[in-house]
Amino acid sequence: MPSATIEGPKIEDVQTKRTLVKKVTDALENAYKLPRHVFVVIIKENPPENVGIGGELILDKKKT
Amino acid sequence: MPSATIEGPKIEDVQTKRTLVKKVTDALENAYKLPRHVFVVIIKENPPENVGIGGELILDKKKT
Amino acid sequence: MPSATIEGPKIEDVQTKRTLVKKVTDALENAYKLPRHVFVVIIKENPPENVGIGGELILDKKKT
Amino acid sequence: MPSATIEGPKIEDVQTKRTLVKKVTDALENAYKLPRHVFVVIIKENPPENVGIGGELILDKKKT
Amino acid sequence: MPSATIEGPKIEDVQTKRTLVKKVTDALENAYKLPRHVFVVIIKENPPENVGIGGELILDKKKT
Amino acid sequence: MPSATIEGPKIEDVQTKRTLVKKVTDALENAYKLPRHVFVVIIKENPPENVGIGGELILDKKKT
Repeated sequence: MPSATIEGPKIEDVQTKRTLVKKVTDALENAYKLPRHVFVVIIKENPPENVGIGGELILDKKKT
Repeated sequence: MPSATIEGPKIEDVQTKRTLVKKVTDALENAYKLPRHVFVVIIKENPPENVGIGGELILDKKKT
Repeated sequence: MPSATIEGPKIEDVQTKRTLVKKVTDALENAYKLPRHVFVVIIKENPPENVGIGGELILDKKKT
Repeated sequence: MPSATIEGPKIEDVQTKRTLVKKVTDALENAYKLPRHVFVVIIKENPPENVGIGGELILDKKKT
Repeated sequence: MPSATIEGPKIEDVQTKRTLVKKVTDALENAYKLPRHVFVVIIKENPPENVGIGGELILDKKKT
Repeated sequence: MPSATIEGPKIEDVQTKRTLVKKVTDALENAYKLPRHVFVVIIKENPPENVGIGGELILDKKKT
């Protein structure tokens, strides 16, 4: 705490997750002025059949 | 944004997810009066060993 | 449980919240086939200085 | 509702989940003075490549 | 991290929050076997016009 | 979507929120390679009597 929870599609590459967590933590550290070790970032990966945008599943958008 | 995050058990059928996302988006559109494409709905599926109701895992309720 | 958590701007009118909760619950009931009393819907209202879209606070977008 | 959502690493043992849900429900019941059956506890398990602490993935901390 | 986020109605008394946080942390510590200082508990208080159970606002249930 | 939800203490200064949202969006854009306008960042501010760390309210830690 403080923490950031990220909701998005699957991220295939661990290096991308590594960079994402680092940069979000940089942003949190800059905002809250607390020791870096207190910040937690959680990445949540959602399958395309579980997310709807504009009332339509991402799964179905991809088919188009 | 606006968004709705739904927490429930697994939904086996994609058509059920499709209808759920459509109807929740209809409700959001009616409430917020914003363009339909801005609304996000996320369905989270939880296994029965990870949810407790009344202090008891759903996994154990099913055994009864 | 199941539940839906809605994140959006402030809704001024209680009747709008009433209808939103009713319609989202209808959608959940239709999807999960569980007794209506088990469904929970939570509306979260966020001030425009606490939400960013495209990297910009809603507060600042409104000024434009 | 009320509910508690727990975010942590994977819990291998179902008995540990059983006890966790029971104890958290005890704490909720004591605080809110509502019938026990209304309380919901959800356990979310996160892989070590999806959680960063202090800007570093748990995956990478383990390697050290 | 690990953390627990509690969603419920307003808790008037700080002592009740104090006890709730202590007991939930006890439960987390027992489950995850990590140092006590890493656990975070967040209490979210929701007004009765923002929560629906069974499709009806808590605000309206209270009127009955 | 994708989105980031940040949980922390109150941020007094709007400029700090502005920078936080901008930097987190930069990080999301870099990770997901999607158009910038799709990213949502929500800042949640929690009072010190509603957050416990290590089983103790932040409110009480401050008194020490």
